[in-house]
Amino acid sequence: MTDKLAKILTAATTCIARSGVRGLRVNDVAKEAGVSSGLLYYHFTDRAGLLAATLEHINKQVSKDDAPSAKATQDSGKHLRHLLLDEIKDDADVRRNSVAWNELRACSIFEPELTEPLSRTTSEWNREIAEAIQAVHAGTSNQEAAVTAEILTSLVEGISGRWLSGFITTEHARSLVSGAIDSLTAPLRKVSEEDLGS
Amino acid sequence: MTDKLAKILTAATTCIARSGVRGLRVNDVAKEAGVSSGLLYYHFTDRAGLLAATLEHINKQVSKDDAPSAKATQDSGKHLRHLLLDEIKDDADVRRNSVAWNELRACSIFEPELTEPLSRTTSEWNREIAEAIQAVHAGTSNQEAAVTAEILTSLVEGISGRWLSGFITTEHARSLVSGAIDSLTAPLRKVSEEDLGS
Repeated sequence: MTDKLAKILTAATTCIARSGVRGLRVNDVAKEAGVSSGLLYYHFTDRAGLLAATLEHINKQVSKDDAPSAKATQDSGKHLRHLLLDEIKDDADVRRNSVAWNELRACSIFEPELTEPLSRTTSEWNREIAEAIQAVHAGTSNQEAAVTAEILTSLVEGISGRWLSGFITTEHARSLVSGAIDSLTAPLRKVSEEDLGS
Repeated sequence: MTDKLAKILTAATTCIARSGVRGLRVNDVAKEAGVSSGLLYYHFTDRAGLLAATLEHINKQVSKDDAPSAKATQDSGKHLRHLLLDEIKDDADVRRNSVAWNELRACSIFEPELTEPLSRTTSEWNREIAEAIQAVHAGTSNQEAAVTAEILTSLVEGISGRWLSGFITTEHARSLVSGAIDSLTAPLRKVSEEDLGS
């Protein structure tokens, strides 16, 4: 992705995080990015295309941020934990992405054109977490990994909603996610140990 | 609660579920309920008061619906499962309440006056689930029950968001919640068994 495209999608995320999706116009995003509306229409066709690209952009942030740390160390357990916990951090970019994602998710109930891109990005996220689970718990079936991943990503969304509205602190939100990872992957861990023992 | 008040709060829920919280006016709710705006201001003071009462109204629906079934049978395990699974059902009232709750949760990030009532109703819900957990797993500490309850109610919110936007079916959403209840309460079950054995 070119720097200009990334700048536009970050501007879209900022606009959504500031005042929501409803009422958001392509013009607002162009103004925030300091480019012409024409350029946005050229790249994204319309508002729906811009929102779809923004969703994908947000989805890629966490994996990208995580790349230099856990992934490089080949510690797969740490990588899984990072992928989930890095969604909830005292960091302006993480919070902005989380507010925008949360808002796009909520609006998809009222704006059906968001359903398809949201489904696609959610599926990608689920798949990434399922792969990270299998990297730690080698004996886990695709089906088991997929279900555990779906529960974990749904939980991160639920906890993020409460964290963003200030109901729980960052520390508490992260400890809930961390505890849930332990409980939900405990039966999978057993499978791997049995495999090792046989 | 009088029938008239219940009718007004159901009308507010319907309005929110139909077109969201943003832009919602007290007048719209009065029209939906077939009463005067004056009556709404008399009972709820302002828009914020009406939204706070609506949140509490939604929160009470599931416990009420559950009352004649599991609670009467004294089956506490069934009661816990019902309390959580009854949030996701192919039922027009349940879906309407869920859309409205989901929308109020999402809007609380942009409308700080929603934070306090939302925190209060979420705390009540957490407490109810924690009590239901302790009714099944007698040996569970208050702290353990509270954390498990928080994870489970957050998960129900996260899964509901995906269910409402059509990303997952009702059946699949319920099976994810059901599986998570099993995994997350499994360590608690052990505590109770140990207590029984000692």
